[in-house]
Amino acid sequence: MQIYLDNNATTMVDPQVFDEMEPFFVKIFGNPNSLHAFGTASHPALRQAMDKLYTGFNAGNEDDIVVTSCATESINWVIKGVYFDHILNKGKNRIITSSVEHPAVISSCRFLESLGVDVTYLPVNSEGVVEVESLRSAIDDKTALVSVMWANNETGMIFPVKELAQIAHEHGALFHTDGVQAVGKIAVDVRDADVDFMSFSAHKFHGPKGTGGLYIKKGCRVTSLLHGGEHMGGLRSGTLNVSGIVGMAKALELSQQYMDFEKSEVRRLRDKLEDALLKIPDVIVIGKKEHRVPNTILASIKGVEGEAMLWDLNKQGIAASTGSACASETLESNPVLEAIGANKELAHTAIRLSLSRFTSEQEVDFAIDVLSKAITRLRDISSSFSYAPSWHKSRL
Amino acid sequence: MQIYLDNNATTMVDPQVFDEMEPFFVKIFGNPNSLHAFGTASHPALRQAMDKLYTGFNAGNEDDIVVTSCATESINWVIKGVYFDHILNKGKNRIITSSVEHPAVISSCRFLESLGVDVTYLPVNSEGVVEVESLRSAIDDKTALVSVMWANNETGMIFPVKELAQIAHEHGALFHTDGVQAVGKIAVDVRDADVDFMSFSAHKFHGPKGTGGLYIKKGCRVTSLLHGGEHMGGLRSGTLNVSGIVGMAKALELSQQYMDFEKSEVRRLRDKLEDALLKIPDVIVIGKKEHRVPNTILASIKGVEGEAMLWDLNKQGIAASTGSACASETLESNPVLEAIGANKELAHTAIRLSLSRFTSEQEVDFAIDVLSKAITRLRDISSSFSYAPSWHKSRL
Repeated sequence: MQIYLDNNATTMVDPQVFDEMEPFFVKIFGNPNSLHAFGTASHPALRQAMDKLYTGFNAGNEDDIVVTSCATESINWVIKGVYFDHILNKGKNRIITSSVEHPAVISSCRFLESLGVDVTYLPVNSEGVVEVESLRSAIDDKTALVSVMWANNETGMIFPVKELAQIAHEHGALFHTDGVQAVGKIAVDVRDADVDFMSFSAHKFHGPKGTGGLYIKKGCRVTSLLHGGEHMGGLRSGTLNVSGIVGMAKALELSQQYMDFEKSEVRRLRDKLEDALLKIPDVIVIGKKEHRVPNTILASIKGVEGEAMLWDLNKQGIAASTGSACASETLESNPVLEAIGANKELAHTAIRLSLSRFTSEQEVDFAIDVLSKAITRLRDISSSFSYAPSWHKSRL
Repeated sequence: MQIYLDNNATTMVDPQVFDEMEPFFVKIFGNPNSLHAFGTASHPALRQAMDKLYTGFNAGNEDDIVVTSCATESINWVIKGVYFDHILNKGKNRIITSSVEHPAVISSCRFLESLGVDVTYLPVNSEGVVEVESLRSAIDDKTALVSVMWANNETGMIFPVKELAQIAHEHGALFHTDGVQAVGKIAVDVRDADVDFMSFSAHKFHGPKGTGGLYIKKGCRVTSLLHGGEHMGGLRSGTLNVSGIVGMAKALELSQQYMDFEKSEVRRLRDKLEDALLKIPDVIVIGKKEHRVPNTILASIKGVEGEAMLWDLNKQGIAASTGSACASETLESNPVLEAIGANKELAHTAIRLSLSRFTSEQEVDFAIDVLSKAITRLRDISSSFSYAPSWHKSRL
């Protein structure tokens, strides 16, 4: 059996999404910016797609939703755009973000630090979440931008973006949220949350890789990252990736249709898997279930090296992760667990299991069985797990 | 009949390319950066794809070829990267480019001008080409970068990149070429031309939209445009677009296999179409055939507004262009013809016809017939065409 429990790294393209994309490779291939019939043939599909994106995020008609190549591009755009428009030769010199952001945010901020920008990385609480008070005490009128994720990629914890955005606005700062891990898993309403920017990536919600987007609230446009032929209303140049746009929009539409299923069935299976893990001694899971997106578990299994567990699971056909796939070729400990303040041993024993609407009960049952046996086996050969009582229990 | 003569705007994805891409949406969907079997399943195809790109451009093993979302991204990356690494707080303050570059180059340069960079836009000769002497007299030791295209998108004229690169290097400047319109049409050997950077875009050579790349010579790396999870050897962050990479590489491989066909058959059909047009009085074509890529004709048809011709052709099922699709929603005159020094009337009468290996003789014959009739009809109703002798000839 091949079981995919790494949906926070990437997701399968939904076959329905692929069906919508398929005509726009060989058959309807014109450049949408061309005026002839080959070019305009894609316009109805593109218009529908953009409508789906606006509907899906509840964006206002005068807001912008700009299709990019991925959330990493969107994030770089916002952070560097704010630098050029609000920091360079302007009165502000500060960006506030959190210590558990995706590498796209952290690395863009580090780059701006090299240009002299003052960046504050807010700490997180024991559940791995930025507390509202933490931002309130850090922000000042030199702050140009606050960037905090909507949901964390590793723990699945949901952040108080609405409250954080409000504080940013009270101090005249813009607010960006990395919505990558929230979109498709929980309702994402940009107007209700009142964010100024939101980045997202299609491949995290059963859309294609190579397509993402940036929501920009009316009046908040910043300098483009990609200058050129003035596509997408002059905001993002580059020939439109028609199949990608159509696919992403269909994926968002489907994710909304499945939102109740996500909240009930995906969550039920996640909880079943989580409860089974928690019955094993010395296993902890970060964050309360009700504070998380419905599909994610970040567990720490005492005495079991995360990488070793990954290999054991892989041998049984189960795909999981020790953390962000964007950092997974390195053997570093889990950065979110480190930020939470876990000791090094704990941070090295993290394993992330992330489900999707394609995960079946049978798969979860098989995963529970394999995980239980793997924990026993790996604790058996582990030098760091020497807590005898629970050890014996786990062998029963 | 539907006839596509706008291959410089974008191309049909070759069905063979689509076949190679197809498994990487629904079936093999893992994130290549994940360590498990779902992630590594794409590695053999990715390795093969990268090999094809290195082979296709004759890049050295220690050079970088980095996959991006499009040439516009690659171009922005080079120009802004050079700004951060060689201009900002460094001794150099100058970029030299040409007046007929793609908007991605021109707009990126304009952006740097707003930051205080001195940009020189070299003129072109009557064939629309930058002359070597023109660069030689403009360059100085303050020049950080020279960026000149390999082939022009509108005329198809091939530029002397090897000589231009040599001059740049003699003055300690880096050399970037926008290879978008050369790749797939003529042999593109980055080591022979000795360029430091080359941008390219898959959708111009029968690959997918949303995928492009940047060649970077060993030792020439510049600050990333997309900071983040350190994909692509730390040079370009963002989850790998596996289907796009595989598709682009296959498209490049095919374009090499068809290179002789391009040089002989595509050129023969282009020449047939061009010769038929030139038999009509007061039609001129920019640039000598042998100085152009084999597929392109930029014609000026006296007395016939380019936009009007476009609509006439479109009604007959023929797709053409008045110039770059990246600027075609505006009704401006052809900027390349303006740079060449054509008067306004001439610049408004430009029409670009660009063939591909999928263009058939039957299509060309039909296009000749439709074009001839359209010219007669449009001259008939045109107030600007009052050159009686040729007018009468064209009615025969």
